[in-house]
Amino acid sequence: MSHRISRQIQLKSRPAGMPEPDNFQFVEVPLPEPAEGEFIVENKWISVDPYMRGRMKEGASYVEPFGIGEAMEGGCVGVVLESRNEKFPVGCHVLGNSGWRDTWISDGERIVQVDASSTPLSCFLSILGMTGMTAYAGLLEIGELKDGDNVFVSAASGAVGSIVCQIAKLKGCRVVGSAGSREKIEWLKEYAGVDEAFNYHDTSDVSSTLKDHFPDGIDVYFDNVGGDHLAGAIDNMRDFGRIVCCGMISGYNDEKPKPGPANLFKIIGKRVKMQGFIVRDHESLREKFLTDMNHWIDEGMITWEESVTEGLENAPEAFMALFNGDKKMGKALVKL
Amino acid sequence: MSHRISRQIQLKSRPAGMPEPDNFQFVEVPLPEPAEGEFIVENKWISVDPYMRGRMKEGASYVEPFGIGEAMEGGCVGVVLESRNEKFPVGCHVLGNSGWRDTWISDGERIVQVDASSTPLSCFLSILGMTGMTAYAGLLEIGELKDGDNVFVSAASGAVGSIVCQIAKLKGCRVVGSAGSREKIEWLKEYAGVDEAFNYHDTSDVSSTLKDHFPDGIDVYFDNVGGDHLAGAIDNMRDFGRIVCCGMISGYNDEKPKPGPANLFKIIGKRVKMQGFIVRDHESLREKFLTDMNHWIDEGMITWEESVTEGLENAPEAFMALFNGDKKMGKALVKL
Repeated sequence: MSHRISRQIQLKSRPAGMPEPDNFQFVEVPLPEPAEGEFIVENKWISVDPYMRGRMKEGASYVEPFGIGEAMEGGCVGVVLESRNEKFPVGCHVLGNSGWRDTWISDGERIVQVDASSTPLSCFLSILGMTGMTAYAGLLEIGELKDGDNVFVSAASGAVGSIVCQIAKLKGCRVVGSAGSREKIEWLKEYAGVDEAFNYHDTSDVSSTLKDHFPDGIDVYFDNVGGDHLAGAIDNMRDFGRIVCCGMISGYNDEKPKPGPANLFKIIGKRVKMQGFIVRDHESLREKFLTDMNHWIDEGMITWEESVTEGLENAPEAFMALFNGDKKMGKALVKL
Repeated sequence: MSHRISRQIQLKSRPAGMPEPDNFQFVEVPLPEPAEGEFIVENKWISVDPYMRGRMKEGASYVEPFGIGEAMEGGCVGVVLESRNEKFPVGCHVLGNSGWRDTWISDGERIVQVDASSTPLSCFLSILGMTGMTAYAGLLEIGELKDGDNVFVSAASGAVGSIVCQIAKLKGCRVVGSAGSREKIEWLKEYAGVDEAFNYHDTSDVSSTLKDHFPDGIDVYFDNVGGDHLAGAIDNMRDFGRIVCCGMISGYNDEKPKPGPANLFKIIGKRVKMQGFIVRDHESLREKFLTDMNHWIDEGMITWEESVTEGLENAPEAFMALFNGDKKMGKALVKL
């Protein structure tokens, strides 16, 4: 054994409804000595994302469920501490999927080396990582965004939404976002540069609020939320509009799924396309994404927020806060 | 005046729920003398279609609502009786949208001449008309049908569904259809050549019935029905499946729309595309459609049913029967 210990957050029990602290356990396990071709990584940043709620459930989905008594997984960036793999020398920085722990061992499979010389490490989990890529691929590929489109974004100040809003603005669109606090609305208008934003706590009727904001209708709805936002958007879609189904966080913690939109039939007459997607299917876009995004960052054309929680032991808290739409802005990260 | 009378079915009142005989009125109105460039048509066949239920409602949709006290509209084929337009001489056959009446006057706008020498007139409203074209465009364009796909069709013995099933079989797919009577199930298996068919009255759980019929999941669901068929299909869609939203007849007569599928969120993880369409947007396919369809007809590779009601005065009855899924098979037509 390496005498090293991996401190990790394991799934202790599957949540019924909203995840609670007792669904997680903090455990220390010995880390094996690296074999030939292996190396040990010390995580610096780990990502917490809403999709992980799906992996806490039993049953098949597009990713395997987390095992009870096993460390949870997720995006992470770290530094190589010990190495018996010449492609990943000590001191190099890597992006992997072994989050929710401080150290881990790898044979290099599906691990990407990143250049931390001019980019803050956390960016590989946010603006330049899965989050940025989700926004980019969803909006441009699935949403088939066109210049001048009317774009509605829900959870607009969130990790993905905040980037979607700005890419749409950069592409010459009119953008309206919804979010859950006055602070978020101000951020959207002042920093993300959206045309209009509304606090969904201030409306009991998302459909009519959207009608006020989009008198000519919506061309692209980037849905992170589902529920009344989705139904309201369907009411206001223009002919040939596109609904990008990225997430439906409003239902992730339902023990019994809520009914879907009663106005779904309207997608026929309006010839709307609704399409679900997962970012990993869009790897072919990565090079173009990185070129565009680095350009926008270098030119100061895009901004992003990170909500940072300190300490591995606080990762469950950071994760649970994702489901309280009033609290955090931008990409939720845990700094180790 | 021409001394001619147009006998027509007008919308008398808007239905609340299921249309009733009292929502229609049979009226005789004088037909004006044709001006220069105009001609008079005598209808031979008129089409009744579920989408007309939408036009009986107030409020904007993709087609204008029918006016109270005005003749209803819809597909029709007839013969020119009198003409002051040399492009449409007496005796020629035309396809138009002035159904629900015996005679009408036109200036030729949006009227198509058809060759009745070798094709029964009714075909221009069924297999070679809007119905066939809806099946063809929906399945191939919106459904992006591929060889070997697993295809589920609801209302599979209906006007559009029965053609969808057969095109999918011709394209090398495995096809399962649902319908509402034993007679229809037999027709689907014996004449349409589907692999399997089930009577939805025999199941209280469409989702698990579909799981039995599609152990490997569904690639394309051609939805004519909505409701539990749509939810059941979503449960059983394969990754990257396509749902062709052609109609949701289960909800057309609801005074208050029913909730949508509670499992809609599954389209994200499965990367499903759901897309509404209207056949008139796919005119660019017409030539290819006619070539293919005439070939399939000539070779005896496709069959179709017409449920014929005799007499204009019985058109409302023929229309109302569309919403009783147990009754009629194939394309509903009224013969004058």
